[in-house]
Amino acid sequence: MKKKVNTSGSKLKIIPLGGLEQIGMNITAFEYEDSIIVVDCGLSFPADDMLGIDLVIPDVTYLMDNIDKVKGIIITHGHEDHIGALPYILKQINAKVYGTRLTMGIIKNKLVEHNLNKVKLHVVKFGQSINLGDFRVEFIKTNHSIVDAAALAIYSPAGVIVHTGDFKVDYTPVFGDAIDLQRFAELGKKGVLALMCDSTNAERPGFTPSEKTVGHTFDTLFEEHKNTRIFVATFASNVDRVQQIINTAYRYGRKVAVEGRSMVNIIETAAALDCISIPENTLIDLDHMKNYPKEQQVIITTGSQGESMAALSRMANNMHRKITIGPGDTVIFSSNPIPGNEKSVTKIINELLRKGADVIFQDAHVSGHACQEEIKLIYTLVQPKYAIPVHGEYKHLKAQARIAESLGIEKERIFILSSGDVLSLDEEQAAVTGKVQTGGILVDGLGVGDVGSVVLRDRQHLAEDGIMIVVMSLEKSTGYLVAGPEIVTRGFVYVKESDELMEEARLLVDEAVEDCLDRGISDWGKLKSVTKDVLSEYVWKKTKRRPMIMPIIMEV
Amino acid sequence: MKKKVNTSGSKLKIIPLGGLEQIGMNITAFEYEDSIIVVDCGLSFPADDMLGIDLVIPDVTYLMDNIDKVKGIIITHGHEDHIGALPYILKQINAKVYGTRLTMGIIKNKLVEHNLNKVKLHVVKFGQSINLGDFRVEFIKTNHSIVDAAALAIYSPAGVIVHTGDFKVDYTPVFGDAIDLQRFAELGKKGVLALMCDSTNAERPGFTPSEKTVGHTFDTLFEEHKNTRIFVATFASNVDRVQQIINTAYRYGRKVAVEGRSMVNIIETAAALDCISIPENTLIDLDHMKNYPKEQQVIITTGSQGESMAALSRMANNMHRKITIGPGDTVIFSSNPIPGNEKSVTKIINELLRKGADVIFQDAHVSGHACQEEIKLIYTLVQPKYAIPVHGEYKHLKAQARIAESLGIEKERIFILSSGDVLSLDEEQAAVTGKVQTGGILVDGLGVGDVGSVVLRDRQHLAEDGIMIVVMSLEKSTGYLVAGPEIVTRGFVYVKESDELMEEARLLVDEAVEDCLDRGISDWGKLKSVTKDVLSEYVWKKTKRRPMIMPIIMEV
Repeated sequence: MKKKVNTSGSKLKIIPLGGLEQIGMNITAFEYEDSIIVVDCGLSFPADDMLGIDLVIPDVTYLMDNIDKVKGIIITHGHEDHIGALPYILKQINAKVYGTRLTMGIIKNKLVEHNLNKVKLHVVKFGQSINLGDFRVEFIKTNHSIVDAAALAIYSPAGVIVHTGDFKVDYTPVFGDAIDLQRFAELGKKGVLALMCDSTNAERPGFTPSEKTVGHTFDTLFEEHKNTRIFVATFASNVDRVQQIINTAYRYGRKVAVEGRSMVNIIETAAALDCISIPENTLIDLDHMKNYPKEQQVIITTGSQGESMAALSRMANNMHRKITIGPGDTVIFSSNPIPGNEKSVTKIINELLRKGADVIFQDAHVSGHACQEEIKLIYTLVQPKYAIPVHGEYKHLKAQARIAESLGIEKERIFILSSGDVLSLDEEQAAVTGKVQTGGILVDGLGVGDVGSVVLRDRQHLAEDGIMIVVMSLEKSTGYLVAGPEIVTRGFVYVKESDELMEEARLLVDEAVEDCLDRGISDWGKLKSVTKDVLSEYVWKKTKRRPMIMPIIMEV
Repeated sequence: MKKKVNTSGSKLKIIPLGGLEQIGMNITAFEYEDSIIVVDCGLSFPADDMLGIDLVIPDVTYLMDNIDKVKGIIITHGHEDHIGALPYILKQINAKVYGTRLTMGIIKNKLVEHNLNKVKLHVVKFGQSINLGDFRVEFIKTNHSIVDAAALAIYSPAGVIVHTGDFKVDYTPVFGDAIDLQRFAELGKKGVLALMCDSTNAERPGFTPSEKTVGHTFDTLFEEHKNTRIFVATFASNVDRVQQIINTAYRYGRKVAVEGRSMVNIIETAAALDCISIPENTLIDLDHMKNYPKEQQVIITTGSQGESMAALSRMANNMHRKITIGPGDTVIFSSNPIPGNEKSVTKIINELLRKGADVIFQDAHVSGHACQEEIKLIYTLVQPKYAIPVHGEYKHLKAQARIAESLGIEKERIFILSSGDVLSLDEEQAAVTGKVQTGGILVDGLGVGDVGSVVLRDRQHLAEDGIMIVVMSLEKSTGYLVAGPEIVTRGFVYVKESDELMEEARLLVDEAVEDCLDRGISDWGKLKSVTKDVLSEYVWKKTKRRPMIMPIIMEV
């Protein structure tokens, strides 16, 4: 392989466009002279204060401004925080997309749902490289909670960057090979400019256990619950987990059905690509389950995060068309609550117990991310000149920075970046040299970016205390008040209990407006502000609430 | 002491009016013939879907309906989930309140804030009994995360009930004595009808460590951070924790200031009652801290749950008048996130790290509730005929029921009650014999109960997609449309980006209304429903959103 020599003296620029403020919305641009490649293109789920928002995608203004340079989008694996923004971004940037087999299978389904049938998807094998402008990108096998996850070696004239993607070290994976540690070592031996390593579990000591350990847990649990129907709730995309449940079910002579649209889709895709191997006559349609006794049934389902509309919640709340969970059922949570979901998970567990089901929510899950010892292993193999912790909130990035320091990398060579930072680097030096526009674009229904901070603030205000609408009609010719003021409220107070309150409020507004008009003040802005002042003061005094007050004046 | 003999054959009724669906809103009525006593009177914090609600208090209709029977309210300890509803309930029920010293001190402050100065508060000592109608209630020393927590022995003609309150077994408490295990044993020896035991930690194996272990942790942490200013965030009411921080600070020659209104209040109350002992010249005013070098400062603060308006958040976000946290500061979280607060706690940790502070959020906290081995200890001492797990979500109650079973109590003698259940019991038998009205009354500002499910549903709707208001004026005499329709929105979409959408919507409504009027349809209800239909269909098609649509017709 011919090594390019950096004669131009240009620097490589690494520009994260997302993913460094939270876990989610991963997207990073690598730029060298006239070439830009983009790694991952994920979404994030809305924060608690983003009322009504469905999802958040990255602001890619920087890529749009440099559209001619963009040579392609490389995806490390098929999780939403790495692929979820593709259908939106590909409408703005017509780039070719590169990734491994299952990753591309999942992306294809997603694009079809969005009527994006013409995007060029290019499947890459592990060990294979692709040339994109001044870059060459090699895909390296890793392990993660989804099959076909890749790390990347990104070759540029300024040096080689190793990007781990999301990974763990699994010496005994369920499907395919263990992480290609030899390749990491080889790259390290030759010289790596920077390592961009997954920080998700950087606060956790030790090693993440092998996915196979969960298989042993299933064996034990199936042995202990031979006489009950078994439900297993897990993440839709964890194909290996589903594989292991099927393996155990097969050993115990049980039939398996999969429930929940997202999980059915992924399992079908994985089966079509031979990423999952299902013994004959084991996986059956949910409709056919009724032909088997309960103790021969296993139902794998979505809803492990307590999502109220997912299959598990519906089955627990008698809202599912086919299945109701009750006494004689065992429900295994093969998952951990994602931070923020603790309460909804607890809610469904309480509901299942109340229905008489046996619930197991410990020890049937392992993480897909590397813990501290695995992170140390990768650093020690790769021996990077610079460390750039990625994939995490600040506390996770900071924890990885501490690990890097403990391994002898000086503080000055460790960069905790923020989204938008332009890190320019080569063998000689590295520094943040600029800042580009970034941010989260809110998606609400079909609207992309049409809900901004003003609309969100209004939603927050409406959510807190509701709205009072005051309507009145003024006569065009005379300026007299000919109808109203009338007050209508929503989300403020149960109106039947507040007749008196509302009548008094109406009188106060009427008085204030008439007073203005009598004094010749007919400016609508003034009338509206007087209405707001009178009403908000009165309502605050009476209720200690601050509903949104909206005066509307009509002219007739 | 003369033992009453149950000659009437009447049964004791235990009626939980709250506290069995969640952790919070604890209140239980005990009824025997013409006597009712009430144990605890707590609030709960609003669930995520209770938008704009400040707090939730129990529905005490049953007590109001039997007001002549109510002999008194007994409080086990001074936490909000046991005392928080008192200011509201005491406005409905004029009862005498009984509790231990610090508990009564905290309640007194609370009542003064609510201008309830005339309530009769009666301080009871451990070991002392009070007679209330057919009942006698004895206060028994326990340990908990607040000083002066009590268990109760409730003597009725039908038998003795032991109610643990919230407790743990702490052989080496920071203040006062260890839990009075001998008294539990004595009662058990004489015969206990039922045990109502704290379930909070019933899922956790082992023993909860002594509060003193946290003191040792503080010593280690202060030793390790001799050169930094130290902040400790903890629960306002944990007087023992504050005591230990002060002890360690004193040993290390540091001055201590307390910040956060609720904590200052409780420490003042505790100090006045000699429940905390502060070495001279150790506790100083925050204003005087500036006279000492950083390494001689300790600031104990509220905000350990990431509450955005609490002192810690304000100090981290440069919003505090006196203190800003930055490099050279160490922040110790002496707390665990309460379920549901994980994300806000993480947010403040990230912010503190980003500001350059050192953050310690492990090992500086112990729970105030009994784990499995402690629960077993109490059951084994008390040997109750019936077990009634209390204080927890269903999963916690269920976990305690399993413990009781493992100790040999038959399933039929274990009662997992729901709020409102009437459990009638005596030595012969126990059964749920009825159901009384219960529920949560929502408090929003000054309004108690005026926000119900309709208002909440509206708030949810407004929060999701905002509101579209359509106003129009009809002429009284002719029925013609003389002004409008005009459409105004809030929380729907950024209007400047949707001019075209709004104009088209207006035209559609105009057309539909004119069409109705032309056909002689002038019924307002009909006009409004046509407006809603036209608009919601159009908006859904264009945006996949469902804002609240509110047509308002005026007559001029």
